[in-house]
Amino acid sequence: MPLQDHHQIISVDDHLIEHPRVFQDRLPQRFKEAGPKIREVEGKHMWEYDGTVYPTIGLNAVAGKPPSEFGMDPVRYEDMIPGCYDPVERVKDMDLDGVQAALCFPSFPGFAGGIFHRSQDKDLAFASLQAWNDFNVDEWCASAPDRLIPLALLPTWDIDLSVREAQRMASKGARSVTFPDSPVPLGLPSFHSEHWDPLWSVLEETGMPASLHFGSSGYVPGFSFINSRVAGAEMTAPDAPFAVAIAAFATNLMWTTMDLLFSGTLQRHPNLQISLAEGGIGWIPYVLERCDQTWEKHRWYQKIDFDTRPSELFRKHFWGCFIEDTFGVANRQKIGVDRICIEIDYPHSDSVWPNSRKVAAAALAEVPDDEVEMIVETNARRMLNFPRRS
Amino acid sequence: MPLQDHHQIISVDDHLIEHPRVFQDRLPQRFKEAGPKIREVEGKHMWEYDGTVYPTIGLNAVAGKPPSEFGMDPVRYEDMIPGCYDPVERVKDMDLDGVQAALCFPSFPGFAGGIFHRSQDKDLAFASLQAWNDFNVDEWCASAPDRLIPLALLPTWDIDLSVREAQRMASKGARSVTFPDSPVPLGLPSFHSEHWDPLWSVLEETGMPASLHFGSSGYVPGFSFINSRVAGAEMTAPDAPFAVAIAAFATNLMWTTMDLLFSGTLQRHPNLQISLAEGGIGWIPYVLERCDQTWEKHRWYQKIDFDTRPSELFRKHFWGCFIEDTFGVANRQKIGVDRICIEIDYPHSDSVWPNSRKVAAAALAEVPDDEVEMIVETNARRMLNFPRRS
Repeated sequence: MPLQDHHQIISVDDHLIEHPRVFQDRLPQRFKEAGPKIREVEGKHMWEYDGTVYPTIGLNAVAGKPPSEFGMDPVRYEDMIPGCYDPVERVKDMDLDGVQAALCFPSFPGFAGGIFHRSQDKDLAFASLQAWNDFNVDEWCASAPDRLIPLALLPTWDIDLSVREAQRMASKGARSVTFPDSPVPLGLPSFHSEHWDPLWSVLEETGMPASLHFGSSGYVPGFSFINSRVAGAEMTAPDAPFAVAIAAFATNLMWTTMDLLFSGTLQRHPNLQISLAEGGIGWIPYVLERCDQTWEKHRWYQKIDFDTRPSELFRKHFWGCFIEDTFGVANRQKIGVDRICIEIDYPHSDSVWPNSRKVAAAALAEVPDDEVEMIVETNARRMLNFPRRS
Repeated sequence: MPLQDHHQIISVDDHLIEHPRVFQDRLPQRFKEAGPKIREVEGKHMWEYDGTVYPTIGLNAVAGKPPSEFGMDPVRYEDMIPGCYDPVERVKDMDLDGVQAALCFPSFPGFAGGIFHRSQDKDLAFASLQAWNDFNVDEWCASAPDRLIPLALLPTWDIDLSVREAQRMASKGARSVTFPDSPVPLGLPSFHSEHWDPLWSVLEETGMPASLHFGSSGYVPGFSFINSRVAGAEMTAPDAPFAVAIAAFATNLMWTTMDLLFSGTLQRHPNLQISLAEGGIGWIPYVLERCDQTWEKHRWYQKIDFDTRPSELFRKHFWGCFIEDTFGVANRQKIGVDRICIEIDYPHSDSVWPNSRKVAAAALAEVPDDEVEMIVETNARRMLNFPRRS
């Protein structure tokens, strides 16, 4: 029995839905009117922010529904199970699921705060972003400090402000920051730029990994989506079912990985840690072999002549996670057993809640006990600096 | 000794460089002036076509150079080894390399004819394309019919013309057509469109697989390249080394695979065969598992409710190939040993010429003889309808 009762599952990728008062309870008076609030429009709950209405509160809050009922995002809070937005109910749902602790990404702001990044009024955006960060630490995670792990958003549009917000949140107890899977789709300098060095330095100093969730840049993978995602390009309706993007999202994180491995960033920041959220792990051995081959052949004339092989850098800096990934688990030695975590993805469609523990036990049935313990618990505790309380 | 002397290596992905007379020898008189010809500009050989000069004749014709001398595309024919453009010399180079037969993609036209596709004068483009096709069958492959395998370009801008050209080339002996890894970057309907059905039908009828070479749509993978590749978007200089794209190119073919698996095309064309050229194979098990999971969960409400699991479709319709892919070879049973071929990629930088046979022997050292024979020879002969002559 490889997954044992004393193994605590720590999920490095879950999601919370903001309740209606998250921002209004915290914004300074002058921002309350324009700040995010829930409006009821024709019987539906919608976020309104700075004059724009965002029609979906639920973003795939399908937890508890069978796949045959997937496909309609909730349009009212009552359409979701309360664990989506209520931390006390969330912990009960985690108990049902056999999960000890979870790192939860934002919903309305985007997984890495893209809504605020694209906002015209940056003072409003920053106030709203800080409201989310304070909510997450002071309310959501404070309700169950052993169970909910604080994550911080960053004001990606301003590197100095990002550094200060990371410092502020680290001292409030945040264990990770969420960062786009690439800054480029947001119009920002890429991972190859030294623009981000002050942020990477503060993450090293505070011991917070950057959690890079696939799709958090807003970039939708797949040929059919290329015309609809580049700023300034003419919008054309994609003719592929969105299933193609769902299947393909890990290619974002393959690009992320390759960007970072060939950027020099990791050589300049030897303690920087990167968590690849929701990307699965089965592709990692192929990508590392391909990166090493590329490095062997092409570093002679390109600016990638660094000392370290990409695969060695990966094993020092990256963490992968999975929900169901038979192939990845079977090949865990090629990835690094000490670099693999588990995720639950509640309440999204990749999640198998409330059967996560059962599914994990099946997925890990052939894995030795000590490796199971690393994968379900101790790796994540180490990465997130989130030890068991004795 | 798993790779044995009687095993003949058949490469499903090599490249030829067009010699200066390929087009001029064949174009009708009225197209000779505008048609592709070599000009000498400041000591360099360049293709001139319809008023535009294309500065690189060599496109990574690095065969025979050590990696430490990579990086400069040849600027004169004399800078390349003659096997790049002379079929008699090519066969000698294949003998040196221990390779029996090779399917060669075009260079100047683009791997799938993108230069002609983007051409304003479509009559000129079609005449030039037919010139290449005739050259390939009548000159390049005719010089060694057991050793060089004919491949045809298609006029992708016109479906009826594409059907007729595929028929014409099949009756001239072509064994495959080269097609973009996605039509979308060329401004064409995607693999999800029924636009291509007449072409898929003629490929089924003639038994020609579509050879989809990574990058043949002109799409360069990687976040740093997204702003420079969408028609109409502002060009910005990528800030990543091109090594990132080299490492990432297989993500193109992952997207290609997912597009086709979720498109319904394969259900409508049960005999259509797809060769994924230069993509490697190590990623295939992960992608199939992910596609099956997506199909399980999302076919209930999306237009992907077809009868067959994606992984089953893959094993019936797709062929992968590799040069060096330790991880893929070790996991060949998860891919389908009857679906894996080998490629040489002469004269490009992924090639290990003149050591291909040696490298293949090492890569396949742990593989049983009967599987080695399938991988290096019989799979490709079956896919390309290119049996041994007795």
